[in-house]
Amino acid sequence: MLYHEKAAQAEALLDEIGLDAWLIFVRESVIRPDPGIELVVGVDVTWDSAFIFGRDGQRVAIVGRYDVAGVRASGLFRTVIGYDESIRDPLIDALHRLDPLTIGLNYSLDDPTADGLTHGMFLHLCDLLSQTPFPSRFVSAAPLLAKLRSRKTPAEVERIRAAIAVTEEIVGLVEKQIRPGVSEAQLAAFVHDEFRQRNLASAWSWDACPIVNSGPDSEAGHGGPRDDIVVQPGHLVHIDLGVQREGYCSDIQRMWYVRRPDEESPPPEVQRAFETVVRAIEAGAAALRPGVRGYEVDAAARQVIIDAGYEEYRHALGHGLGRACHDGGPLLGPRWPRYGSMPDMQVEAGNVYTLELGVATSAGYIGIEEDVLVTDDGIEFLSTFQRRLWEV
Amino acid sequence: MLYHEKAAQAEALLDEIGLDAWLIFVRESVIRPDPGIELVVGVDVTWDSAFIFGRDGQRVAIVGRYDVAGVRASGLFRTVIGYDESIRDPLIDALHRLDPLTIGLNYSLDDPTADGLTHGMFLHLCDLLSQTPFPSRFVSAAPLLAKLRSRKTPAEVERIRAAIAVTEEIVGLVEKQIRPGVSEAQLAAFVHDEFRQRNLASAWSWDACPIVNSGPDSEAGHGGPRDDIVVQPGHLVHIDLGVQREGYCSDIQRMWYVRRPDEESPPPEVQRAFETVVRAIEAGAAALRPGVRGYEVDAAARQVIIDAGYEEYRHALGHGLGRACHDGGPLLGPRWPRYGSMPDMQVEAGNVYTLELGVATSAGYIGIEEDVLVTDDGIEFLSTFQRRLWEV
Repeated sequence: MLYHEKAAQAEALLDEIGLDAWLIFVRESVIRPDPGIELVVGVDVTWDSAFIFGRDGQRVAIVGRYDVAGVRASGLFRTVIGYDESIRDPLIDALHRLDPLTIGLNYSLDDPTADGLTHGMFLHLCDLLSQTPFPSRFVSAAPLLAKLRSRKTPAEVERIRAAIAVTEEIVGLVEKQIRPGVSEAQLAAFVHDEFRQRNLASAWSWDACPIVNSGPDSEAGHGGPRDDIVVQPGHLVHIDLGVQREGYCSDIQRMWYVRRPDEESPPPEVQRAFETVVRAIEAGAAALRPGVRGYEVDAAARQVIIDAGYEEYRHALGHGLGRACHDGGPLLGPRWPRYGSMPDMQVEAGNVYTLELGVATSAGYIGIEEDVLVTDDGIEFLSTFQRRLWEV
Repeated sequence: MLYHEKAAQAEALLDEIGLDAWLIFVRESVIRPDPGIELVVGVDVTWDSAFIFGRDGQRVAIVGRYDVAGVRASGLFRTVIGYDESIRDPLIDALHRLDPLTIGLNYSLDDPTADGLTHGMFLHLCDLLSQTPFPSRFVSAAPLLAKLRSRKTPAEVERIRAAIAVTEEIVGLVEKQIRPGVSEAQLAAFVHDEFRQRNLASAWSWDACPIVNSGPDSEAGHGGPRDDIVVQPGHLVHIDLGVQREGYCSDIQRMWYVRRPDEESPPPEVQRAFETVVRAIEAGAAALRPGVRGYEVDAAARQVIIDAGYEEYRHALGHGLGRACHDGGPLLGPRWPRYGSMPDMQVEAGNVYTLELGVATSAGYIGIEEDVLVTDDGIEFLSTFQRRLWEV
C-alpha cells in the first residue's frame, strides 16, 4: 500500500539525510494540511498529534482519543498512544525514549510543500517541551521531505499517469465545444461538468481550473475564465487544466487556433510562435536527466525563447508534480530570489515534472505544458506532447 | 457580496482590537490554506503574497504577476501590486507608507482556525524585512480572527442553515437504509452517493464523514465506518455527518434504535441514556447566551451527565461552526490544557455553535449533536433537535 511504501522510504531517508528523528506535529489536519500527514500517514487528526519516525524503524503516534482507532487501523505505527487532556506527558516520554540528537520539523523558507508546521504550532511545541533539551535539537525536515516527495515510487507514477490520461480524454471532448461564440466561462463550465461526472477534484482551485484564454484580450495567468470573452475566428484558444485523481495530479496546457473563413492554416506569426514554444520545451526535455540542476534545465528552454526574439516567460519552466500540483523538490526555474534554493537542487530519477512555457502573439497567448518522468538516462513523456497546433 | 461584508467587518475590528494593521502573508494557498484568504480574500494565490488591511480603510494587495487579474477582479483591494522576482521591495514600500506600530499575523498557539501562517513563512517574512523595524511590531492577529470568524453575518447564517437543511434531508434518506444486515461501510457509501449527487463536500475528511457506529463493538470517534460491523436487532445506530455547501458547514449527529423481534420499544437502559443526553443538551442550550464564557456552558451540560451517573464525555460540548466545521472563536469546552484559552472566551450574539455529547450503553453509543445560533437573549436551534430516539 502506498502510505506504507512512502513510510519505508522516509525511514531510509533518515539515514541518508543524517537526521535522528522526524516529528510530524499537527492538529485539525483537514483545515491545516501537513506534508507528513499527506505523504506517510494518510489519516486526518483533530487534536494536537505527534507522529515520530526514529532510527532503526521506530515509529510512534500520539493522538487524541477519538483519533486512535483511525491511526491504528492504518497499520503504520507500531505504537499508538491516545490521550485526553494534553499531549505533553506522552510526547515528552516518547522523545526521552528515542533521545534523538536532531529532530526534523516540517518547515521550510522556500519550499511550500515542505512547510506545513504553522508558526503557532511551532511556538506551542516549544512551550510543551520547554523543560526539556528537545527544542534546541529542532532542525528543518525540508531536505528529507524534498526527497520523499520527489522520488516517486512506481505506484505513484501509475497514479499520475492515470490522472493525465483522464485529463487528455477531457481535452478531447473540449475540442468539440470550441467554436465562434462560445465564451471562456462556458468552456470552463463544460470542463467542470466532466470533472464532476468522473468525481475528479481540480488540481488547483476550482474557480481557476481550467484556465481558459481566447484571443489577445484575455489575460494569461491564474484569473478565472470570463463570460464576456467569446471565441472568435482568428483567436488562439488556450486551456491549462489538471485533475486530482486518487490523490495525484495532472497539469497540462493545450492550444487551438480558430481559422478565419478565408484561412487554410494559422498565420505565419502564430505558426512560428507555436514552433518556438515546442522547440523550447524540447530543449528543456533534452537537458533534463539525473544530476542536472533545476536552473540549468530552465536555462536551456529559456535560451530558445530569447534567441527567437520573444519576451521570456516570467515563471519557472517546470515544477514537481505529484500529490500537489506544485509538488516541491527541485524546481526547473531561474535563480530568482523568490524561488530560494529550489532551482539549485539536483534532479533525480523518479522525479516527475511539468515542462511549460508560452509566448504572446497578436492572436492570443500560446502556452504548452507537458508532464514528464525522469528516468535513469533521460526522460519519458507521460503526457502526449502537443507538437502540432490544433485547428478548429 | 460575502467577502466584501467580511472585509468591512475586519476593517472595523482593527479599531476594536487595537491593531494598526493586519498582514495576511501566504503562498500556494491551495495547499496551505490561510484564514485570511478564506474569510476576506476568497482568491487563491501562488507566489509569496501579502494582503494588508490598515487603519482608515487602507487595503493593499501585493501578489505575483499571474495572480494580479484574479485579485483585481475581486474588487476587494484598492491597490493591487504585481511583481516578478521578489516581493521584498513592494512589501517594504507598502509597509513604510502605512507605518503601522502593530502588525497582526495569522498565528495562534491554541486556535487552529487563526493559525495559518507557517513557521517557514514567518521566518521568510522576518528575513525579507530584516533591515526594517517591522518584525519587532509583529503580534498575533488571533483576537481579530476569532471575532471575524465567529460573528456571523446574516448571509453567513443563511448559508449554514442551507447546509443543515440538506444534511437533514440526507438523514431522512439514510433512515430507510438502516436494517439488519447492512454494514456501517454500506451506510457511509449511501451517504457519500447523496453528497456526490448534490455536489456537496464533506464537512471533514471524506473517509471519516459520515462516522457510522452500529452496536456496542463499534468504536466512537473519528475512525472510518467498518465493513465487518453490520446492523443487528438490538443495536443503536449512530451517525455523525456534515456537509460543506457554498463554503459553509453543517455538523449533526443522529440516532436510531433497531428493535428486536420481541420488542415494542427500546430497553429502559437505552431510553434513560437517550433522555439524559437530551437533558444535558437542553441544559447547555439554556446556559448559552451572549456574555457567558464557553466553559460555563460546557459545565452546565456536563453536570447533567455526571449527576445521572454516566462517564463524562471527553471532548468539548460545542465548537463554532462556519467555514470550518471546527470554526474557532469561543469553545464551549472544559478548561483542559489542550484547549488553551478558548473556553475562557465570551460568547457573542451571531455566534453559531454545535451542542454535542454522548454516553455509552450496552446497545452502543448514544450521541446527539445540534447546531444553534446565539441571539441577543438566548439561542435559536438551526437544526431540528432530535428529542426522541428514532426506531426502525
